[in-house]
Amino acid sequence: MDEFSFIDSIKPSNYRQSSLIKGVDDDAAVFRQNTQEVVTAVDTMVDGVHFSRETMAPFYVGYRALAANLSDLAAMGAVPAFYLVSIVISSDWEEHDLREIYRGMSSLADDYQMDMIGGDTVSGKELVLSITVIGYVDRNRARYRTEARSGDVLFVTGTLGDSRAGFECIVTNVDNEYLINRHRLPTPRVIFSKNLNSIDRVALNDVSDGIASESNEIAEASGVDIHIAFSDLPYCMPMADLFPDQYEDWILSGGEDFELLGAVSESEWGTVQKAAERSGIAVTKIGLVTESKEKTGRVYLSKKGQTSLLKKSGYTHLQEGRD
Amino acid sequence: MDEFSFIDSIKPSNYRQSSLIKGVDDDAAVFRQNTQEVVTAVDTMVDGVHFSRETMAPFYVGYRALAANLSDLAAMGAVPAFYLVSIVISSDWEEHDLREIYRGMSSLADDYQMDMIGGDTVSGKELVLSITVIGYVDRNRARYRTEARSGDVLFVTGTLGDSRAGFECIVTNVDNEYLINRHRLPTPRVIFSKNLNSIDRVALNDVSDGIASESNEIAEASGVDIHIAFSDLPYCMPMADLFPDQYEDWILSGGEDFELLGAVSESEWGTVQKAAERSGIAVTKIGLVTESKEKTGRVYLSKKGQTSLLKKSGYTHLQEGRD
Repeated sequence: MDEFSFIDSIKPSNYRQSSLIKGVDDDAAVFRQNTQEVVTAVDTMVDGVHFSRETMAPFYVGYRALAANLSDLAAMGAVPAFYLVSIVISSDWEEHDLREIYRGMSSLADDYQMDMIGGDTVSGKELVLSITVIGYVDRNRARYRTEARSGDVLFVTGTLGDSRAGFECIVTNVDNEYLINRHRLPTPRVIFSKNLNSIDRVALNDVSDGIASESNEIAEASGVDIHIAFSDLPYCMPMADLFPDQYEDWILSGGEDFELLGAVSESEWGTVQKAAERSGIAVTKIGLVTESKEKTGRVYLSKKGQTSLLKKSGYTHLQEGRD
Repeated sequence: MDEFSFIDSIKPSNYRQSSLIKGVDDDAAVFRQNTQEVVTAVDTMVDGVHFSRETMAPFYVGYRALAANLSDLAAMGAVPAFYLVSIVISSDWEEHDLREIYRGMSSLADDYQMDMIGGDTVSGKELVLSITVIGYVDRNRARYRTEARSGDVLFVTGTLGDSRAGFECIVTNVDNEYLINRHRLPTPRVIFSKNLNSIDRVALNDVSDGIASESNEIAEASGVDIHIAFSDLPYCMPMADLFPDQYEDWILSGGEDFELLGAVSESEWGTVQKAAERSGIAVTKIGLVTESKEKTGRVYLSKKGQTSLLKKSGYTHLQEGRD
């Protein structure tokens, strides 16, 4: 592979963000943001650990890696602006496939007029894709997981477990385009999150590790108890039909749906519903927030008349440093 | 290794930057910067490619990786504020050594009151350390490589080739602490760069690939010719004494000295010299900038009465996506 022609081929030819002053053509990028707050996160995916080329074409690898990052921005209430890409290239990747990764990223970036403003291209034994995203949020509108309060409605966007079910469809040769696309081309809930802007206080987490994990993060960070009714959790029928023995687990801890889990006051719940409607997505009330009986917040799940403590589940893994 | 105790052990316990609103405890970090411009870059190092544990203790791996990033900020005139760390951990690294990498980074970060505000910790086959840095620069004070003009003085900080010579000392068991430290603990020229703030126009590049490469980048980006006198290039005597056959090459393309190469008007050259003095470092005039005879800028090197075209040299390699 010719390194220089490859680097040239992935360089952006133009920029769209008006706040950008200098893109990739110097030692670092420069931008100016005088009114909003700046939000940033990094997410890393390793070939064979977070994805496999057997189940994921390179285009989707890039798309999904950036989607995971944008989901973090959405969970902060931020609108995406920039991304920087560090890639470790191994000899078993062809130049064409590497370009497909970048095409996947820029396909999603185009939806939000994001600019790629930096990166590093190095050699190694396995492919690693590490993306840093930068977004903007209005002053005092960043959405922290510490902001759930007793009396709040707990809600979630979309349906749960789809990504895990889509992965299962791919590896077991089940032909369900909807589920497979939910795995390959997840839509970060950026528009919905932006449409919550009129609300003063809303706690948000993105559902990257499943709601068992994410609801515990909100409960702990906010020092509140959360009560979830299993029967209220939204899922899609194809998943239940195709995987009757597994779908209930996937609803709780399937992970990587990149939906948003939130807590908001009863009085603002109508505003949340309208925001979802304007964004063309579903939002479902799945529980309530109460004062914490213990010092640290806990999550209770009621299912078929029984209430149990919902732990973060065994699904938490080394792959997620934050989220 | 216990993943959670490791992640807890590397989490910052406090923050120092007043512009920071939220650090590592949510989906993303948040900061507010209403007056200055924001500067950002990413740099990635792979075990066995960019460093080896045989020649580099883990503390130095972390220190040097962050230094390389801060050198990019210095080359933009920016003062460091934040960093995010993505690490791919392989099974051949012990937890103690991983903590040493983070200790190396925070040791350098402490010098500039930088805060670590995000990261990702994942598993893989080889250790990869990818750092994103964020810094601030006053409005219209970012230092671009496009800003060299005919009539400018070309200058460089410190001495050249030291890092390469230090590496050679390590692998050939030559005991020279000064050179070895220049390799392991390079000092990014942040203070010097900041002390240039009163100057309206100065072009800067950091010397990560050697001045043969960096001077060509300035010449091309600014569309000027650059004339360098080899006899004016600064180097340290131990290097010439220890490596008489190699030191001349290393001066030109040793790389990773993390000094700054700059071009400034004759009238501001005195200000540059004073800035170096205030920063406690050397600065040397090494050449002149003239109008470009060709369409693209070129670099000419005069040595022992002969003038030749100085190419970027064979040292340019895939390891550097930018710089």
